[in-house]
Amino acid sequence: MDNSSPYFAPHLDPTSVGIVTPQTLHFDEPLTLECERVLPSFDLVIETYGKLNADKSNAILICHALSGSHHAAGYHSENDTKAGWWDNLIGNGKAIDTSRFFVVCLNNIGSCHGSTGPTTINPATGEIWGADFPLITIKDWVKTQVMLSDRLGIAKWHAIVGGSMGGMQALQWSVDYPNRLERAVIIASTPKLSAQNIAFNEVARQSILSDPNFYDGWYLKKNAYPRHGLILARMVGHITYITEEAMKAKFGRDLKSGKFMYGYDVEFQVESYLRYQGERFSKNFDANTYLLMTKALDYFDPTRDYTPDDLDEKEALKQTLARTKCQFLIVSFTTDWRFTPERSVEIVDALVANDKRVTFVNVDAPHGHDSFLFDIPRYTTAVRGFLNAPVIKRQTGDITPQEISQLARQ
Amino acid sequence: MDNSSPYFAPHLDPTSVGIVTPQTLHFDEPLTLECERVLPSFDLVIETYGKLNADKSNAILICHALSGSHHAAGYHSENDTKAGWWDNLIGNGKAIDTSRFFVVCLNNIGSCHGSTGPTTINPATGEIWGADFPLITIKDWVKTQVMLSDRLGIAKWHAIVGGSMGGMQALQWSVDYPNRLERAVIIASTPKLSAQNIAFNEVARQSILSDPNFYDGWYLKKNAYPRHGLILARMVGHITYITEEAMKAKFGRDLKSGKFMYGYDVEFQVESYLRYQGERFSKNFDANTYLLMTKALDYFDPTRDYTPDDLDEKEALKQTLARTKCQFLIVSFTTDWRFTPERSVEIVDALVANDKRVTFVNVDAPHGHDSFLFDIPRYTTAVRGFLNAPVIKRQTGDITPQEISQLARQ
Repeated sequence: MDNSSPYFAPHLDPTSVGIVTPQTLHFDEPLTLECERVLPSFDLVIETYGKLNADKSNAILICHALSGSHHAAGYHSENDTKAGWWDNLIGNGKAIDTSRFFVVCLNNIGSCHGSTGPTTINPATGEIWGADFPLITIKDWVKTQVMLSDRLGIAKWHAIVGGSMGGMQALQWSVDYPNRLERAVIIASTPKLSAQNIAFNEVARQSILSDPNFYDGWYLKKNAYPRHGLILARMVGHITYITEEAMKAKFGRDLKSGKFMYGYDVEFQVESYLRYQGERFSKNFDANTYLLMTKALDYFDPTRDYTPDDLDEKEALKQTLARTKCQFLIVSFTTDWRFTPERSVEIVDALVANDKRVTFVNVDAPHGHDSFLFDIPRYTTAVRGFLNAPVIKRQTGDITPQEISQLARQ
Repeated sequence: MDNSSPYFAPHLDPTSVGIVTPQTLHFDEPLTLECERVLPSFDLVIETYGKLNADKSNAILICHALSGSHHAAGYHSENDTKAGWWDNLIGNGKAIDTSRFFVVCLNNIGSCHGSTGPTTINPATGEIWGADFPLITIKDWVKTQVMLSDRLGIAKWHAIVGGSMGGMQALQWSVDYPNRLERAVIIASTPKLSAQNIAFNEVARQSILSDPNFYDGWYLKKNAYPRHGLILARMVGHITYITEEAMKAKFGRDLKSGKFMYGYDVEFQVESYLRYQGERFSKNFDANTYLLMTKALDYFDPTRDYTPDDLDEKEALKQTLARTKCQFLIVSFTTDWRFTPERSVEIVDALVANDKRVTFVNVDAPHGHDSFLFDIPRYTTAVRGFLNAPVIKRQTGDITPQEISQLARQ
């Protein structure tokens, strides 16, 4: 386990980052959250891949999505059969190339993979935080990520990259700390949740909240666990991550036993699959964290601190993104019905309206929202190219999109 | 209350069918179900509107959807403020014109509005059926509806009409009893559920099954009720009945209190709405019935008895619909993402491939799947026109679509 060379792990290939060891960083500074509560101190668990260069200009921050963690690439031991969640993108020669870049991935606070959250100890009481853990927002996460940047001595990130909820963090960074990143890569994301997105989250939350084993969030103290609630929450979430077409291709209406059973046990393969996904998830995730994550999603609105409440939402996004200074890559997937390509276009339009530098790629992929986790050539090529190319500094005298648009109208 | 004239109810207008009184018909013949269990006898609750003509040729059967009942039109008393579920389509001069037609609507067995089902008494035990009530299929319902037709002396229906699950019953009729209907009106329906449709149903079922107050379906005996399970089931169902756009227009991201509360009480208006829909439904519906209805949906596949299991599904539908003899009106709605217009087109294509007479209308409507419950001019006009027009009898010597297609290729 203390052998950090990848070559001793027989299942590793030279493009893998190999065996990695998470580190825990302790932050003693009090952190005032958006909800106005204060975390007296907190831990962040991180992993890093590749080497930071001398002028600290090659660092890329990876932000995880709802159920993600710091473990984005590589393996935790020689016998580890499962690589990090973005292993197909991060590695030696991969789209996020660890032979060029120093890649940092952290577990966000409020999560359940090691960083301070509902399952860790509240230093004030000596007991687990449980239901007392405050609600966290995307903006709070970005604040902790800035503290992490300072700790690592990274004044400006080469890029901040994230899919889904990770993309929201990259977008929030570009608005809140415009001078601290050169590039933002926002994949399968949205400028804010729709009413339907919130509705699905609300079903997931009610599944957990109404489970009698939830005990108002104190299940760990009661030696209980709202397993059914988590299973249901994940099942409904999972339906929105994939597509009707993908489900059809994978399961169709195939029956598990080949005939109708006329009962409520699993009959169709798709039921079996969903239950399995729910069961597996419920064993590896924390219910309070799931609630917190869905709330962080619902609350996300980068325009909130920068524009009046009653401003038209398109105009609000435009005015907010005027603050940004980095170059953007926005990636959407044709079959994503959770955060559709149209939601990405909202971001693109607001950037273009501000004469910002943005590349937009709508990738034809069959996997729905989950596409951002797949190795899809057009997608990975776009990420690779965007990260490897120098940023385009606009020259004085360059024609702006507004001018092009005016010329087109003449 | 015993006054059956509509004119004494002050809130009634002349286009309403007025005050109606449900009737209960008892069937003593044993009914063998698809699951191979036998119901020794059963009751059907029905309502009728309009008058049956002398040759019994003007009868229209209305088939209800998941949560529907026999109460499709009119009011149950002078003080009744809520009309039947399809009151905007059924009435004097309305699309389904009770001044021309004798309209029959029944509550299907297995439901919870009066016909024999999980909440009624099992004559063999003297106790409520509860979890012992057998699973029912669309085909079973059609069988009971044929028995109802015989009881009413209706040899051939002028039309059989249904939306969603009601449309499935009309389709099954056209296949199983082709000589007993002149017209089938199949609205917002599908030839069978997709894997995604089944997945959503499975989430709803698991919500109920995992509620500790479900008691394996014996909640009524325990004086308990799986309220939370039913609320969740309805919430997830409801999301699929309406559209993202409709939710956006109705609620957007409006906050109930105007600001974030950082807790799990209702924050967004859409959450409040969903919880209200769930709560209301849970008070008026039965959990075993909800389970049964979702299973009937999942099982629906009119090709099952007529084609081999391994036949390509498009070919299976084509071969099955070759049996039909009636004229079809198929209606879909542009924003319906539960049963999309493409699903209706599958039916249309299979009918056209068989040289059947079919009218297809894809109605531009913003209400999603629920559109079939709304008074949308293009929709109601299509239904009215189709029901009022004589059926087109093909003349010997008429050119068939196949011949047209052949000519086009020459």
